Amino acid sequence: MHLVIVGGSDAGISAALRARELDRDIEITLLLGDAYPNFSICGLPFYLSGEIERWEALAHRTQNDIESLGIHLRLNTWVTAIHAAEHAVSLDRGDHQESRLPYDRLVVATGARPIRPSLPGIESPWVFLLHSMDDSFRLETFLTTAKPQSAVIIGAGYIGVEMADALTRRQIEVTLVEQAPTVLPTVDEALGRMLQDHMQSRGVRVMTKARVTALEDTGGGISVHGEPDWRLDTDLVLVVVGVQPDTALAQAAGVAVGIRGAIRVDRYMKTNLPDIWAAGDCVETYHRLLGDYTYLPLGTTAHKQGRIAGENAVGGRRAFEGSLGTQVVKVFDWAIGRTGLKEHEARQAGFHPLSASVTDWDHKVYYPGATPITVALVGDLPSGRLLGGQIVGHWQGQIAKRLDILSTALYHQMTVDSLNDLDLSYTPPLSSPWDPVQQAAQKWLRVRSS
Amino acid sequence: MHLVIVGGSDAGISAALRARELDRDIEITLLLGDAYPNFSICGLPFYLSGEIERWEALAHRTQNDIESLGIHLRLNTWVTAIHAAEHAVSLDRGDHQESRLPYDRLVVATGARPIRPSLPGIESPWVFLLHSMDDSFRLETFLTTAKPQSAVIIGAGYIGVEMADALTRRQIEVTLVEQAPTVLPTVDEALGRMLQDHMQSRGVRVMTKARVTALEDTGGGISVHGEPDWRLDTDLVLVVVGVQPDTALAQAAGVAVGIRGAIRVDRYMKTNLPDIWAAGDCVETYHRLLGDYTYLPLGTTAHKQGRIAGENAVGGRRAFEGSLGTQVVKVFDWAIGRTGLKEHEARQAGFHPLSASVTDWDHKVYYPGATPITVALVGDLPSGRLLGGQIVGHWQGQIAKRLDILSTALYHQMTVDSLNDLDLSYTPPLSSPWDPVQQAAQKWLRVRSS
Repeated sequence: MHLVIVGGSDAGISAALRARELDRDIEITLLLGDAYPNFSICGLPFYLSGEIERWEALAHRTQNDIESLGIHLRLNTWVTAIHAAEHAVSLDRGDHQESRLPYDRLVVATGARPIRPSLPGIESPWVFLLHSMDDSFRLETFLTTAKPQSAVIIGAGYIGVEMADALTRRQIEVTLVEQAPTVLPTVDEALGRMLQDHMQSRGVRVMTKARVTALEDTGGGISVHGEPDWRLDTDLVLVVVGVQPDTALAQAAGVAVGIRGAIRVDRYMKTNLPDIWAAGDCVETYHRLLGDYTYLPLGTTAHKQGRIAGENAVGGRRAFEGSLGTQVVKVFDWAIGRTGLKEHEARQAGFHPLSASVTDWDHKVYYPGATPITVALVGDLPSGRLLGGQIVGHWQGQIAKRLDILSTALYHQMTVDSLNDLDLSYTPPLSSPWDPVQQAAQKWLRVRSS
Repeated sequence: MHLVIVGGSDAGISAALRARELDRDIEITLLLGDAYPNFSICGLPFYLSGEIERWEALAHRTQNDIESLGIHLRLNTWVTAIHAAEHAVSLDRGDHQESRLPYDRLVVATGARPIRPSLPGIESPWVFLLHSMDDSFRLETFLTTAKPQSAVIIGAGYIGVEMADALTRRQIEVTLVEQAPTVLPTVDEALGRMLQDHMQSRGVRVMTKARVTALEDTGGGISVHGEPDWRLDTDLVLVVVGVQPDTALAQAAGVAVGIRGAIRVDRYMKTNLPDIWAAGDCVETYHRLLGDYTYLPLGTTAHKQGRIAGENAVGGRRAFEGSLGTQVVKVFDWAIGRTGLKEHEARQAGFHPLSASVTDWDHKVYYPGATPITVALVGDLPSGRLLGGQIVGHWQGQIAKRLDILSTALYHQMTVDSLNDLDLSYTPPLSSPWDPVQQAAQKWLRVRSS
């Protein structure tokens, strides 16, 4: 049997590794459009910040690691067509010589493309997107050779805030422009504002409720124009306003798509076409709390979905248990993250959400180094069910793994109150007898009963 | 209604606070035998290490905080008898003038006493126990005035390893003596040995499989004698070999006791006697995995049980959902902890345990500061159910809150395999796309299928 996988990033590689783990005899071919299999896209900001010296370090595994498992890697190989009825794909290796590769089972893991807004001036050489290794090399070369003094980052999502940190570390004066009322609109405004204050204290200039209308190439640099009426002159513009599923290939083959053009899959990561699975940033993702599909491209999800697609493509029957939208980001000294639903998302989903938050120390304040962290919980009023949580604080305050306590609780549909029954670990240098997530639960209960 | 609480540490204070939270009108009196209400016993090693300058900082709340809630605090007040039939307690305020205090509801939270082994020489002035604030002051005074150069710590449990760290920080040469094959016998030998190596690298001398037979007062110091034949001359001996429930008062009143003399309570923290609840280190604790009672004195458990006893004493009906034995400790640069069952405990409980462990980075190794952490899982072979987990590594590697992911999973009786379905948070500076606890789950599955 021949398993062919289109795409060599998180989902594709995970599918290949899992298929190989379960079946030592099957033939596996992985096709990727560039020369960088299994690179950590999430690590790009830390390469561009200078915190990582060698870009090669970004590989989760080397080409050799992968090939030593008997997985055929075909680099710089574009799939130009999927012939679903014939069970074959057409390949182009850059020489415009099309060849065909037959498959028995196919996993589509073509990922996402960065959104390129249709702004005047977007094609200017001072304007950069950031998604692939090649994008990174282009930007790194520009940073090194042109030595820009200032940058405007359009979009204050995860990549935007990470890149504001990264470019500030390189002594570049950064202005971060965001349409929403605060940076990182994926968290509540109150927490977004806390992050914004922290970023401003580190020298980032932040403009919110600001919409970019045009980029004007001024020869030696660029002018960013926006509404309400403003203009910024800068040496570099980075556009990071999100991604969209890269599914033209699948669509042309008759694979059904849904939200934003993402591939429709069932809980087994199977598409509508025989012997074709799909996973990662190119698919619709089942959300465990919403009980429905959404578009939610995340590296962790891509790993899980890829692993499941690989398992099922070699005869398994494992279901994807759903995403909770768990996300965390480090910006300067802070980590901030979320899991589950925000209040307005919960309301849209038909819940009756109530929010409460506490700010307390990450560990007993009498032990040196305690830092304040803020935990905000969303719960459903009538049922008392936990719906979501957000945490912000110093990045060494165990923010990320405290979010994971909440994520695990959400997985099991716990009530807010029952968080108090969890037997969480405590020692004075690392927590409190009631962990901050439990203190937040107690606060939520007090707000509810008041 | 008058609620009387005997004991002013974690369980007693938690009971008082919860009762007050639920009922603003009830009269609440809290009786404690010393002058230190709500002090953090878990913080004593950090006071004695010099990391905390003022012992007053160890109070979770001040006397004023508690009294401002309308809770009557009676310090230095010993309860000499509980008259269950008459619903009253006898008090002695140190003047041997007995008085009576009537109650409607009583919570017994008398805690535990340190075990004082019946060794020759144990009464020597160079021998110290460590459990109360007064114990701490005695030891601190000795450290400051006598300036001991060396110390022998008998017992390498949590307090023993913490005090080895604390005294080493004070430039005292420490020998840690333990009967078991490794330090911290509450974790697997493999992990205990890793901690032992770390402690030895910091200058602690460790003697395992060593039993102390006598302490010999040599006038200016003390000789510790043991088997197999050895002798250590030292300036100070610290005996920290565990605690036992302090239940003489309750027993004399007819309260039923069980394991090691700990008070028998139901899931509602109710004793066998009318209107008497009990909580904390003086009671038997329901273990969620064993489905049975055990003696497992821990500060976190005392907080939970006290809160429940307080709630039920004012008319509530909340059950204690059980302990998982979750514990963590910081020693020098490391944190080490456990939740659930160890392999041999699981076997004793009738499971068919299989263990597997991985060592991986706490976050992506390409981002600076990554440190190795080891995650060991125990699962049940036939059912695949997760039974326990242990983690060791650098204390800033989110060890404690990773344990809590496992603890939350154990609470819900998850299988090892289903850990892979959890939507855990990831960003390169804080984790990997598969968190180390998930990598351990995948390793366990490979070991099982091999």
